[in-house]
Amino acid sequence: MARFIKDISATKGQAPGSLIFIGDQKIATPIIKVMEYDTDSLIEKELTGINEGAINTKAQGVTWINIFGIHDIDMIQKMGELFEIHPLLLEDILNTDQRPKYLDKENHNALILNILQFNILANEITAEQITIILGQHFVLTLHESQGDIFEPVRERIRNKKSKARLNESDYLAYALLDTIVDNYIILIETIGRKVEDLEDRIFSHKDAKIAEEIYNLKTELNFLRKSIRPVGDLMIHLFKSEHSLFKKKNFHYLKDLSELVIHAIDVIELYSNMVSDQLSIYNANLNSRMNEVMRVLTIFASIFIPLTFFAGVYGMNFSYFPEIEFKYSYPLFWLVTLSIIVSLIFFFRKRKWF
Amino acid sequence: MARFIKDISATKGQAPGSLIFIGDQKIATPIIKVMEYDTDSLIEKELTGINEGAINTKAQGVTWINIFGIHDIDMIQKMGELFEIHPLLLEDILNTDQRPKYLDKENHNALILNILQFNILANEITAEQITIILGQHFVLTLHESQGDIFEPVRERIRNKKSKARLNESDYLAYALLDTIVDNYIILIETIGRKVEDLEDRIFSHKDAKIAEEIYNLKTELNFLRKSIRPVGDLMIHLFKSEHSLFKKKNFHYLKDLSELVIHAIDVIELYSNMVSDQLSIYNANLNSRMNEVMRVLTIFASIFIPLTFFAGVYGMNFSYFPEIEFKYSYPLFWLVTLSIIVSLIFFFRKRKWF
Amino acid sequence: MARFIKDISATKGQAPGSLIFIGDQKIATPIIKVMEYDTDSLIEKELTGINEGAINTKAQGVTWINIFGIHDIDMIQKMGELFEIHPLLLEDILNTDQRPKYLDKENHNALILNILQFNILANEITAEQITIILGQHFVLTLHESQGDIFEPVRERIRNKKSKARLNESDYLAYALLDTIVDNYIILIETIGRKVEDLEDRIFSHKDAKIAEEIYNLKTELNFLRKSIRPVGDLMIHLFKSEHSLFKKKNFHYLKDLSELVIHAIDVIELYSNMVSDQLSIYNANLNSRMNEVMRVLTIFASIFIPLTFFAGVYGMNFSYFPEIEFKYSYPLFWLVTLSIIVSLIFFFRKRKWF
Amino acid sequence: MARFIKDISATKGQAPGSLIFIGDQKIATPIIKVMEYDTDSLIEKELTGINEGAINTKAQGVTWINIFGIHDIDMIQKMGELFEIHPLLLEDILNTDQRPKYLDKENHNALILNILQFNILANEITAEQITIILGQHFVLTLHESQGDIFEPVRERIRNKKSKARLNESDYLAYALLDTIVDNYIILIETIGRKVEDLEDRIFSHKDAKIAEEIYNLKTELNFLRKSIRPVGDLMIHLFKSEHSLFKKKNFHYLKDLSELVIHAIDVIELYSNMVSDQLSIYNANLNSRMNEVMRVLTIFASIFIPLTFFAGVYGMNFSYFPEIEFKYSYPLFWLVTLSIIVSLIFFFRKRKWF
Amino acid sequence: MARFIKDISATKGQAPGSLIFIGDQKIATPIIKVMEYDTDSLIEKELTGINEGAINTKAQGVTWINIFGIHDIDMIQKMGELFEIHPLLLEDILNTDQRPKYLDKENHNALILNILQFNILANEITAEQITIILGQHFVLTLHESQGDIFEPVRERIRNKKSKARLNESDYLAYALLDTIVDNYIILIETIGRKVEDLEDRIFSHKDAKIAEEIYNLKTELNFLRKSIRPVGDLMIHLFKSEHSLFKKKNFHYLKDLSELVIHAIDVIELYSNMVSDQLSIYNANLNSRMNEVMRVLTIFASIFIPLTFFAGVYGMNFSYFPEIEFKYSYPLFWLVTLSIIVSLIFFFRKRKWF
Repeated sequence: MARFIKDISATKGQAPGSLIFIGDQKIATPIIKVMEYDTDSLIEKELTGINEGAINTKAQGVTWINIFGIHDIDMIQKMGELFEIHPLLLEDILNTDQRPKYLDKENHNALILNILQFNILANEITAEQITIILGQHFVLTLHESQGDIFEPVRERIRNKKSKARLNESDYLAYALLDTIVDNYIILIETIGRKVEDLEDRIFSHKDAKIAEEIYNLKTELNFLRKSIRPVGDLMIHLFKSEHSLFKKKNFHYLKDLSELVIHAIDVIELYSNMVSDQLSIYNANLNSRMNEVMRVLTIFASIFIPLTFFAGVYGMNFSYFPEIEFKYSYPLFWLVTLSIIVSLIFFFRKRKWF
Repeated sequence: MARFIKDISATKGQAPGSLIFIGDQKIATPIIKVMEYDTDSLIEKELTGINEGAINTKAQGVTWINIFGIHDIDMIQKMGELFEIHPLLLEDILNTDQRPKYLDKENHNALILNILQFNILANEITAEQITIILGQHFVLTLHESQGDIFEPVRERIRNKKSKARLNESDYLAYALLDTIVDNYIILIETIGRKVEDLEDRIFSHKDAKIAEEIYNLKTELNFLRKSIRPVGDLMIHLFKSEHSLFKKKNFHYLKDLSELVIHAIDVIELYSNMVSDQLSIYNANLNSRMNEVMRVLTIFASIFIPLTFFAGVYGMNFSYFPEIEFKYSYPLFWLVTLSIIVSLIFFFRKRKWF
Repeated sequence: MARFIKDISATKGQAPGSLIFIGDQKIATPIIKVMEYDTDSLIEKELTGINEGAINTKAQGVTWINIFGIHDIDMIQKMGELFEIHPLLLEDILNTDQRPKYLDKENHNALILNILQFNILANEITAEQITIILGQHFVLTLHESQGDIFEPVRERIRNKKSKARLNESDYLAYALLDTIVDNYIILIETIGRKVEDLEDRIFSHKDAKIAEEIYNLKTELNFLRKSIRPVGDLMIHLFKSEHSLFKKKNFHYLKDLSELVIHAIDVIELYSNMVSDQLSIYNANLNSRMNEVMRVLTIFASIFIPLTFFAGVYGMNFSYFPEIEFKYSYPLFWLVTLSIIVSLIFFFRKRKWF
Repeated sequence: MARFIKDISATKGQAPGSLIFIGDQKIATPIIKVMEYDTDSLIEKELTGINEGAINTKAQGVTWINIFGIHDIDMIQKMGELFEIHPLLLEDILNTDQRPKYLDKENHNALILNILQFNILANEITAEQITIILGQHFVLTLHESQGDIFEPVRERIRNKKSKARLNESDYLAYALLDTIVDNYIILIETIGRKVEDLEDRIFSHKDAKIAEEIYNLKTELNFLRKSIRPVGDLMIHLFKSEHSLFKKKNFHYLKDLSELVIHAIDVIELYSNMVSDQLSIYNANLNSRMNEVMRVLTIFASIFIPLTFFAGVYGMNFSYFPEIEFKYSYPLFWLVTLSIIVSLIFFFRKRKWF
Repeated sequence: MARFIKDISATKGQAPGSLIFIGDQKIATPIIKVMEYDTDSLIEKELTGINEGAINTKAQGVTWINIFGIHDIDMIQKMGELFEIHPLLLEDILNTDQRPKYLDKENHNALILNILQFNILANEITAEQITIILGQHFVLTLHESQGDIFEPVRERIRNKKSKARLNESDYLAYALLDTIVDNYIILIETIGRKVEDLEDRIFSHKDAKIAEEIYNLKTELNFLRKSIRPVGDLMIHLFKSEHSLFKKKNFHYLKDLSELVIHAIDVIELYSNMVSDQLSIYNANLNSRMNEVMRVLTIFASIFIPLTFFAGVYGMNFSYFPEIEFKYSYPLFWLVTLSIIVSLIFFFRKRKWF
């Protein structure tokens, strides 16, 4: 299913460790945005390729290299050599169907996770894989497409007094993570609004789309759970990993973020339960309405079907038909009819049918 | 969904750590109530702002500062400086959409949790975030609104012989926690009464609102579970945390409270199961009634529809119609009719339809 | 809900640690039964109050003090002083809405749990809180009411050769626990018999009470699970607690008892699953019957409603009506009627409706 | 419920540790089969009672004593004295309603578990408790009845070259366990065949027994889960217990067996899920059929009921009735009738009812 | 059930440890393919039997022996002797109904797992057991049948520059594992596509096969969960086992693979949830349609059944029938009829039936 698992068949028969791009190419030419900054200075540039000259890997401040478009295997390989990235990590970057993942090597930590956003036009959740590689003096971010949720971070870096400028590469990595998690929360809010919206409609009577919407919400929540739950586990590695490049003094930020993710998972569970309950209630409501409909039908049919037979009898054309000639037959007919109606109504009332 | 997750969008693009108030302003001007006490003396005052002169942070007894209304960022910041509160904690105080949370620093422990109450007028649960910060000689409590569940604690402090007066700041913090947990229990009792009330009504026949009420109860119980479960985890930190300012001799109080929370969660689970069972039974009841209704319909229709046809036949106007002239046709008609009725009743009886 | 959570509102605003009785007073005046025994001698007496003279707390054998009726706060306080019981434990004794609980202090271990019994007259489970306090040379038991499940233990103590007489206070505490757990098992048996009884009835057709009984069984099993599960956890503390007064040589008895409780929980789970399955099957059965009923209705109605129309046509009084005059119309009418019946029966047969 | 929990009431009021037989006596007189063997020799005998003379407890090879029928308390007591069995274990042997259990004492290990078999005649699972006591040089097996699943083991022992003869008592105990677990697997296979059999039938239309069979399968699987899951836990004790008499060199056999039990539990879970799914699908199928039935009914009724009214109108005998006299009334009647039929068919087609 | 548990009855009564083939013979004569390679040389040969001459167990490079067809017990025994395989492992190889399993001995590690593939022709999952035995210088693979998913690995080995040639036996074992796990992912993709396909169809109206397909998907996903979950556990042993022959430098490959398996299990859970949701929604849809059908029926029947009775009344042939003679009876009849229709439509509209 394209939506949740990407086509791995391309790698079938390949030696593990071969660099192959798995995913949809979402951008024509890769774009590389570089920010080099320390407390005093800030240089921004945009490159078209990676080579040692262009990027100073020995710079002492923070160098943030943003790569948009990861289908260019050559470029990824060059970048790997330049920053001494582990080959298996390169492979993971290229495979856009990853479970959120943390990798720590002596000289760099890597986080692979998904940017989740709600595409209002298509009315669906879009997932884009992002890799954040944190080195002693650099942060590498690799995006599938050009969509850029990190512009506010860039804006803050441009402000000389911002915390980002006063801190090192690990703070930048944290700020990026924080932005990604904020996007999760905003997405969950959007889903939450849809859940609340449904809440009123399940009690209204004529809404054929409800089952479909409940299914879509359930699928979205299942997908969110699958996507965000591993992020919670991953956060814990950031503290505990032997080679963590995050500084102790910034641990409380990470802890805070990790608690936000746990909160998000709690809320996803809450919504999942609510949507399941909505479906149960929707069904109970359908049942309850059906009961009402059937009672109406049964009352009408049970009263008038026997009466119709009764009237039919006296419409028969038998030549020998004593009642026909009897003068009080017609008034008697109405008397019997009315007493049948009354006693059936009494019978239904006693059974509390109306 | 406003009810369960607050609008975090306001913080989007902000550097983490910026102080922004997230929530609804529930009070016009913050009110600050201060109690300074030790075994011998008690001073109560009400302030309009926080400044070093007004509050003696070096006092040796217990200083309890109650702040009602937390939307005034300046005031919060001043308070933070005065009591050396960690900046990230300040940020958490201002964000009223927190998961229950415990934070310990060397010089203060903080608890963020929710006061849950049942608003009978609105027939809904209200949640208000409260922060309790425990220092060596002070307790800070920060409320969203003016609603005050701590008045009984204040009353006890005014009594010179109360335990509160004989104990230190950690006992006060415990007494406040105890009050909050008592409110949880009272809330659960209220829900419990609603659950018991429903119990009888699911077996009554004409109650269109049941599905809606079951849904509301389920949502409330889901919300309670989400809100109270983390409080149970949080309690454990109070014992185990390295920097805990709670004194060993008061640990049995905390343990008792923690067990009460676990008990509360057990009861929430019990009620959740009961409400789920009620929904299942309600559905089974609807099904069972439908069966009854359909059996009545089917018996009436199956008997009288064929008979009506039978009567209709002899109402036809064909000019050649031998039975019409036959003298015993009419009595024979009734004979056949009655034998059809009897054999169908026999057929339905055998199938145990009535 | 009175049944599962007692009214804690009484304690609202009280300092934690105040002695307040929470529960229903089930006995007019407390009764105190004392047994003092060792291998050689046995003294039984019945007291009306607790005071040092009456009870020899320094006796070297085993002193078992049974208190029936715990609403007399003064008496509880006196007892507390006499046996040096921790104040918080006194508070727990008075609050009859406790989760099963274990408390160990250096000089006494306490177990608070519920005696569960099935009241056949009221057709409901009754729960009564019991506190067992084990000291070096005494056992204190505090009952809510006069109902006495411990008489057989007393009987055994009266027998000079019984194990109880040969052992110390911890064995007595174990024997009491054993009696309580035996009562759980008997209760579960009773429920089990009800579950088995239902088993046959869900397949019978006319049983309007089944849904209600299933709901009651589910509620009872939920309540049992909530009540007995913590007893399993509690048992483990008896082995592992630092201050356990149970002697190592009697650990195998405790282990056996603990396994019995786990077994009980297993059986409760089994019954819960069975009752849930019964509800599912009951619903499936209702559905299946409804199907049958609807097929009967549909077959009758689909055959005879069109035929009635057909007969109705030839009952019309149009002056120009060619078929009416035609001699073979009437036999032809029956021919067509029969062929309609046959082809509809064929149609329903093909769809496997009967 | 006799099926799953035996009547413990018999022990009510008894001192724990008293020897009482709980269960159904399944054999008139106990039978005792003894095999004494070592690498070289094999002696088989059948005894009627246990006494020191008959059984040489000092023999150096392996002595396997099979006792069929455990209701004779005297015999059990004698056996207990002879082999120095712990009194609590004797009590467990006599109580045939045990959770699978492992007990280790310095001089013997005991396993209490159930032999589960499928009784094809009664179409139900039979459970029989078996106790295996492993000593340094003996193995005691205690059966409730005469049914003997261990004959193949005996046959192998009779073969001088068999592994059993070359090994010691722990290997014999393992071989017996292996036989018991094999029986579990065979039982699960039997259930599996029933599950597969049902699979096809839930899609067939006329099968009133399905709900009942699903319920029975669910109950059987619940019972198997409850019975076999603790055996998995128990296996682990065999490795880890301090006093384990199993030899290290045979641990891989135990590990293999333990994995087989885990596999069995997996398969039970799989079948449980399948049966639950079958019930859901069966219900969905009933719903789907009901839909079909109701559509047929509604189409017939909605077309012909209005037409019958229409025909009825022209069967009225009003003296002033202009249409009656009109020459084209009758052909017009058919025209209108046909157009009503056509437009209703069109209406139902548009709603995709057929 | 043949599909999920193989017939173990064959081993009943056999001593554990006897070599018996359990499974279906899938190939006539075993085929043995051997590859002996090191960095420089590569020898490929195909044997018909195993004997010391043919296979050089002392070779220093890597010897990969592929055995297709494992029903020849003699051959397996010979192979066992040649490579000093533990007897219990030989037994496991022959029993094709194994839970995925890891075994480590000092001189070899063994993995038993299943190759899962989707057989498009039969539209079902096929499982074939494979054993991989890793020695210091050899890898043994034992297949049930001739189907060969390892050809791509062989192809890579033939390439002198491939990683396989540059590495040792543990890398080959890893490459084989990788191929197997890739097949799992491809299989899950196939299932995923079926799940997505169903997604649209549950909302379409006429699809009688949906319940059956949902059941099949659920069963397949249950089977996948049962098969793949233990593989995740097994992977962890590869790192942690004491005698692991995998080299530390290749651990990151194993870690990567293990994460892929965890990802696969996540996706299986996601699909399971989706399919369960689909069934719920399908049922809700059926209910919703039934409601609609019943409303149509009830509206038609409730309007026209009373009217038919009304018309029937005036078709009666009573000789004394005053209305019949009245001139405005017929127009009045229509007036009453229309007002009944209008008021019933108004009644149904008010109840929001259409």
